[in-house]
Formats: sequence, structure tokens, C-alpha cells
Amino acid sequence: MTLTPELVERFVAIVGDRHALRDPNDIEPYLIEPREKFGGRTSLVLRPAEVEEVSAILKLATQTGTAIVPQGGNTGLVGGQMPDESGQQVILSLSRLNRIRSIDPAGNLAIVEAGVVLKTLQEAAEKEGRLFPLSLGSEGSCQIGGNLSSNAGGTAVLAYGNTRELCLGVEVVLPTGEVLNDLRYVKKDNTGYDLKDLFVGAEGTLGVITAAVMKLFPLPKGKGVAYAGLASPEDALKLLGLAQSHAGPSLTGFELMPRIGVEFSVAHTDGVRDPLQERHNWYVLIDISSSRSAEDARETIEAILTEAFEAGLVEDATIAESTAQEQSFWHMREAMSHAQRPEGGSIKHDISVPVARIPEFIAEADAAVLDLIPGARIVSFGHMGDGNLHYNISQPVGADKEAFLARWVEVNKRVHDIVRSYKGSISAEHGIGQLKRKELSETKSPVALDLMRRIKTSFDPAGIMNPGKVI
Amino acid sequence: MTLTPELVERFVAIVGDRHALRDPNDIEPYLIEPREKFGGRTSLVLRPAEVEEVSAILKLATQTGTAIVPQGGNTGLVGGQMPDESGQQVILSLSRLNRIRSIDPAGNLAIVEAGVVLKTLQEAAEKEGRLFPLSLGSEGSCQIGGNLSSNAGGTAVLAYGNTRELCLGVEVVLPTGEVLNDLRYVKKDNTGYDLKDLFVGAEGTLGVITAAVMKLFPLPKGKGVAYAGLASPEDALKLLGLAQSHAGPSLTGFELMPRIGVEFSVAHTDGVRDPLQERHNWYVLIDISSSRSAEDARETIEAILTEAFEAGLVEDATIAESTAQEQSFWHMREAMSHAQRPEGGSIKHDISVPVARIPEFIAEADAAVLDLIPGARIVSFGHMGDGNLHYNISQPVGADKEAFLARWVEVNKRVHDIVRSYKGSISAEHGIGQLKRKELSETKSPVALDLMRRIKTSFDPAGIMNPGKVI
Repeated sequence: MTLTPELVERFVAIVGDRHALRDPNDIEPYLIEPREKFGGRTSLVLRPAEVEEVSAILKLATQTGTAIVPQGGNTGLVGGQMPDESGQQVILSLSRLNRIRSIDPAGNLAIVEAGVVLKTLQEAAEKEGRLFPLSLGSEGSCQIGGNLSSNAGGTAVLAYGNTRELCLGVEVVLPTGEVLNDLRYVKKDNTGYDLKDLFVGAEGTLGVITAAVMKLFPLPKGKGVAYAGLASPEDALKLLGLAQSHAGPSLTGFELMPRIGVEFSVAHTDGVRDPLQERHNWYVLIDISSSRSAEDARETIEAILTEAFEAGLVEDATIAESTAQEQSFWHMREAMSHAQRPEGGSIKHDISVPVARIPEFIAEADAAVLDLIPGARIVSFGHMGDGNLHYNISQPVGADKEAFLARWVEVNKRVHDIVRSYKGSISAEHGIGQLKRKELSETKSPVALDLMRRIKTSFDPAGIMNPGKVI
Repeated sequence: MTLTPELVERFVAIVGDRHALRDPNDIEPYLIEPREKFGGRTSLVLRPAEVEEVSAILKLATQTGTAIVPQGGNTGLVGGQMPDESGQQVILSLSRLNRIRSIDPAGNLAIVEAGVVLKTLQEAAEKEGRLFPLSLGSEGSCQIGGNLSSNAGGTAVLAYGNTRELCLGVEVVLPTGEVLNDLRYVKKDNTGYDLKDLFVGAEGTLGVITAAVMKLFPLPKGKGVAYAGLASPEDALKLLGLAQSHAGPSLTGFELMPRIGVEFSVAHTDGVRDPLQERHNWYVLIDISSSRSAEDARETIEAILTEAFEAGLVEDATIAESTAQEQSFWHMREAMSHAQRPEGGSIKHDISVPVARIPEFIAEADAAVLDLIPGARIVSFGHMGDGNLHYNISQPVGADKEAFLARWVEVNKRVHDIVRSYKGSISAEHGIGQLKRKELSETKSPVALDLMRRIKTSFDPAGIMNPGKVI
């Protein structure tokens, strides 16, 4: 259906003129995503502040066959939040639906609306003596609704799980405008099909999550963060085993970084410096949260490193002596993706393989990539404890950026074929969006794709919800 | 469709004569469930040993409109595994599909078929130095497929989650006979809709789970189990907070028991005795698993009890001095349900409410039940750490059993109304089955029920999968 001026007026009437953006200058920020990889046009951005407004928008959209593209903090990396080039798709921004409806520290729960910025929830929880453990690079602008719709991962999955595991229940506006109240407050509830987990990770293709019940946790009583230099991913895997054995469920993060990534971070990021004197081929960041005390966290991390030194697993290591230093170690890791930019084009992957096979995967994928593109600079870093690597490839020094990036699909295919042979995932935490939609059909079985289509058709018969994404 | 002799022969031909039971004597054990609450008839039990056989059975069932009732260890408490009285429904037993396809201790994974008995998997994991943490009273006979289909809870949910959280991926035979291979080996995988979690907890109404990838964990290096006498559920709640504060993620179990339950267990169970000298109104069992050492577990549990004594939260307590004693403490708790039998009729509930509201719930529900049935003996015990109580009610001494049990629905309604007012669940871990099917419509919103029906219709258009259950 064409987005006629009359139809636009009907949508505008729902949220009011002030909250319906039509000026291209106002709309522009909604059309620029982090990697500037996905274009897209629209003539209308709707900014409802109430669930009832979202409901009225979707009802009208279904009646008129208007495509709706939900958008949170616009930090997604796979184009899931972007409209297509037709200009006929309407962006539904959840930013104004941003109340923390309640926080219950005794019950370890927070009821939050979709537009609440992740950092805002973290801070609100901390004020109540509680931890909301989801943490990722974009936490200052990404929103809970987007975190849920993409089942975001981040840096504390090892101990706390993905966003899915942090959510007990959801409130969803269905494409018809009906509101599903599946806000659950208990972790044990076996009453019928698990609707919540269908909407979590569906990237806005089945409905619009408007609120959720999120789990909170006691604040750790102590933190310990260590930064170690190692010879190889094999040693990093052994170190992981050792860390798990000592820290058990207190191991919150275990991040792997290659030398080249550290060099990029240091060279291109203000305030990032290498805490170790010598060069090492690989680095690991270990993050421990103790439920007991600061001393306990310290002792645990020292015990891990002592045994690692004795076993010859680490070449050098240092433990953060202050919160500022802990943050500086993490800054090194978090700067790594952006620090690739000044080095030219980067072909990205967000893969996972069984944790124990990470070293094998790196060796096989590196060889395959260098066979395709000699001189490619492989920056494979990430959440090793979860088997999840951002296996990114910076262009060879002096290569032509466009020519290099033109090989994106070809390189992806080669790397993802290896991932598939390891029974891994071609999208560990970023989702499918537009970026990997075509590839999904090569990864999923026809039976799985068919079931997904049946769900999509039965939930959204008019096909208005984020068309062109996922399925 | 009528189960004609010709049709029976076609089903028999799939699994072979030996594995198709038609003699009523052979069939009888499949028709007697633990509470003997649900009757049901059938003239055919099929016992396939291969996924291909399950596939052929469901394909034929869809073609002929034959109802299929999947059955695992036949330990379910809500009649989900029972056929109806028509004699036209075929039982599909998964017992012979019982291979452990592989165990990967390094990767902390086990690939198991549906018919593997829970205890068998626990033991196989332990042989490899790993823990499979799912644990429940019926673990010697219940099967993984049933655990998944009912999203079983049990005694270690506090630390490890429900069966859903222990499962990474599933293999499912769809009603059409198609096989969905959604066996995933990684915990981070954001590629499309979460199909796995639709089948988990669906109680066999959407397809038949034939195999699954289950998570394993390092074996704890030390255990600590304490048994404490307390004055009230309020004190138990404070003790829980204290235990969580000291033990953090090492707190594996926190079970509440009332005096009357302890008396029943002691009176009616061989080998169960009260470890404490004096009488107490309430009891708590605390289970700690340390990833560090036996001493650490011991120290943690001592620290909890010391602080609890100082705060006046516990009246008396004892710590198990041996594995045998740990088991004996647990035996007290696990015997509690069966120990109600010699006391006459019992009206059961399997509810959850937000943990912090357990004391309030007990007070309100007790008053309501005693108002309905003066003299009723309330045995409210269970997984307090998860907010999950088996809120059971034994008949008044000397009352007529049938007359008491005739009030089952009335009492349920009163208790469940309170549960709903607390935003809790009327089936925390046992599922809906036949028992709570009617009540589901009073608990779920019409929108949720409609979505469930849409899923059911789109996955099982012929309506052959476990009809009369859940939805």
C-alpha cells in the first residue's frame, strides 16, 4: 500500500504532530546506522509514548497494509532497524516509551518499557543495590526493547546469560493492535507455550515488545580484573578451564584479543594503553565477580594467575588495582571494533563455535582467509568464554578499500562454511536483520525455515512487521 | 478417525510386532499414572527405537487423523501422558529411543535421546567428571523427553535453572513426519525464531522431541547441606537472603518444610528421621555446591548458620557430616509428597509466587483454605528459593476422603485466585496436561490463548498431537 498523504495524516493523528517526524532533517538520525552499511528511506517517523498509541499504529498499519519498522537506540549492526529504499515503510521509534514502571529490589525484578536506555536501567538498579548485568559497548544508547528483540549478548553472558535469560516476561503489541500481556514475575511458570521467547530475538518481525520484566541480581561484593599476555589460543583455552575451575560461577567475563587488535586499540583510541611491557601474540581479559568480598575476588584471580604461571600458560599478567584500571582494561577490549576503522575496510563476522574448538577454528579460518586474501589482517577477538568471536578482517595494508569490501560475501561464505562444519552459529549475538537474511536459508534447514514462516504468517498475516528482515 | 484393525496393522508394521503392544496386560502399566487420577484407554502402544519410526508413525497419524499421545517415563502429575477414555488414541512410548548419542566433557554437552532415563544421564555425566544438574523425585524413571516436554523443575533450579535452561537444542518429529534438526551446540545463536523453546514445555502437543543437546557442568568440589528449624516463613525468607548473600551462585537448593510435613515423612517413610531434637514450626534445607573445595562449602554453610543464629533467625540447625547424611536430609524433603498418602486425601497445588511474597502468600492461602475446610492439614513445602511451593492440603483427621476430594476444584480455585493476585503461576513445574486445562483459560488472557491456538493450528493442522492437553 502506498503511504499517501492521507494515510500519513491518520498515523500522525495517533501520536500528535509534535511526535511524528516528517522533516528530512529530523528523520536523518534515524536513517544512519553504526556501520553506515544500510541505506533506507522514509517520510515518517512515529514516536509514541504510550502502549495504546503503539496499538493504534499497528492496527492502522494492518488495516492499510503499511510496513512498520520498529527502532530502539539504532545501534543494531545487521540493519534490522532500517527501512528499505522504497520510502513506503514507517519507522516506529520506541524512544519515548521509556519509563521504568517499577523496581523491586527484594524481588530482584524491574518492569521496564522498551525505550529505556540500557545504561539507565543499570544505574537505576545500582541505586537500589542491585545489578542489571547486561553490558555491551553501545549501552549508553541502546534500548531494552532492542536488546530483547535482538537477544543481545555482551560481556557478562558467561555468568548471567543472554538477554533472553534475563527476561521473565514481555508485553507485546501484536500486528493487529491487540496487546499481549505476558509480563510474568516468577521464574517457574509452566502454563502453556513459551510465547515470550518467540518475541525475544524475533527482531520486530512478529510484534512490538513494549515492556518487559527483567531480572536483577545482588551487586557483587568484589571485582577482580586481570589482563594477561599469552602465546596462543590453545593456552587461552587452558587458562579458561583453569579460571572456571577456580572461580566457578564467579567467572563473569573471559575475553580473547590478538596482538594486532591491541595495537589498533592503542594506536587509534584516546586513553587506551597496553598494560604489559612486552609484546605477546594473544591477550586475555579475565573478569571475576565475588558474591563474598573484594579480598575473595582478589584471591581468586591471584590463584588463577599463580597456577597459570606455574603451568606456563601465561607469559605475563597484571591485575587491576582500582576501578579506574579495571575500566581501562575493558576499554582496550571495547575499543577494538572501532579501532579497526582507521585501518581501512573491515569484513566482519559474529560467530560462535563450541568453546573447546575455538583454537582449532581460529587456525582453520585464518588459513582460509589468508588463502583468499593474502596480507589480510585478522582481528579475531571477543567472548571466548561463550565460544563467540568477532572474527573481523581488516584489509591488507595499502589495499583498495572498495575492492576489499567487495569480497565481503565471498569471505563470509568461506568463514561461515567453517563455522557450520563446527556446528556453530553465523550470528552469535547480532541477529540476522538484512545482513544475513539471504544466508539464513543456507544455514537453517528447510523444515526450520518452514516453521519460522508458519509462525510469521500466523502472527502477522498482513506482513506489516519489519518486512525484509530475518525471514 | 476410528482406529480400525487395518489401521492398527499399518502402525504395527512400522515398529514391528514385538514393539507394538496390544495385549491389555502389556498395555496396563502405560495407563496407570502416579496419582491414579486419570483413567484412559488404548488398544495400542507403539515403542519405536529410531527417529525414522517416529516419523513414519506421525506421518501415518496425520494422514489418517489418528490421535497420538507421547509418553516418556509415565511420571507426569497432570495427566499429560494419558490417553482419553475413547480407546481411539495411540500411545507413543519413547522408552526405546534411549541412546546417549555422545558426551563431550570438554564442551560440557551431552546429546541424548528422549527415552534416556534422567538418572542414567546423571550417572553417565558423572563418569566423565561432569554434573547434569536436573534432579527430581522421579529421576529413577522419568525420561529426558518428558523432562523437556514438561520443562521439569526439581531441586537445583536455584543454581542451574529449569530443564529449558539446560537445553541448547532439540530434534523434533513434526506431526507431518518431517524431522526438525534444531540440535544446537552453542549457547549464543541468534539465527531466527527460538523454535526450541516452543517445543520445550509444549507437553507433546506440537511434535515429538526425539533428542536434545543438554548442558553439563563441572562437578562441584564440595557440598554442604544444612537442616534448620525456624519459627516462621518470614524467618525462612530472611535466611534465604542471608544464604544468597553468603553463597551467591553456590546456593543450589533452599527448601521449605512445615512441621506437619516433617511429621508425615517421619511417620510414613522408612529410614526418615528428624535430625533435630526439638520441635519447630518450620524447617529449611540449605544445599550449597562449592566450585572450590569441600572446606569452602563447609565454611560457607557455617558462616550462614552463624549469622542466622546471631540474628535469631534459626532455632536449631545441623550440618550433614557425610554424603549419607546429606541424602538423609534430602530424603526427608523428597518423601513429603508420598507421606501424605496414608493421611487420607490430598488436594494438591504446584504454585509459584514472587519469592519475597512467600510468607504473605502462605498466611493468606492458609486462612482461605481453613475457612473453606476447617481442620484441613496444610502441608506447604517445596522450592522456596524459586518461589515454588507444593501447597498441598491433607484432609482433616477422620474426614471422609471422597467428600474431601470432591472439593478439589473449589479449593484449587480459591488458592489459585490468590496466586493470580500475586502474579504467580498456577503450574510452576508440573505443566497443564488434563488437570489444569480448563483453568488455563481463566489464567491466560484471551490474546495469549489465541496466539497459542494459532501456533497449535499452524504446527498441527490435523490436530493429532496429544489432543485434550494444554490448549
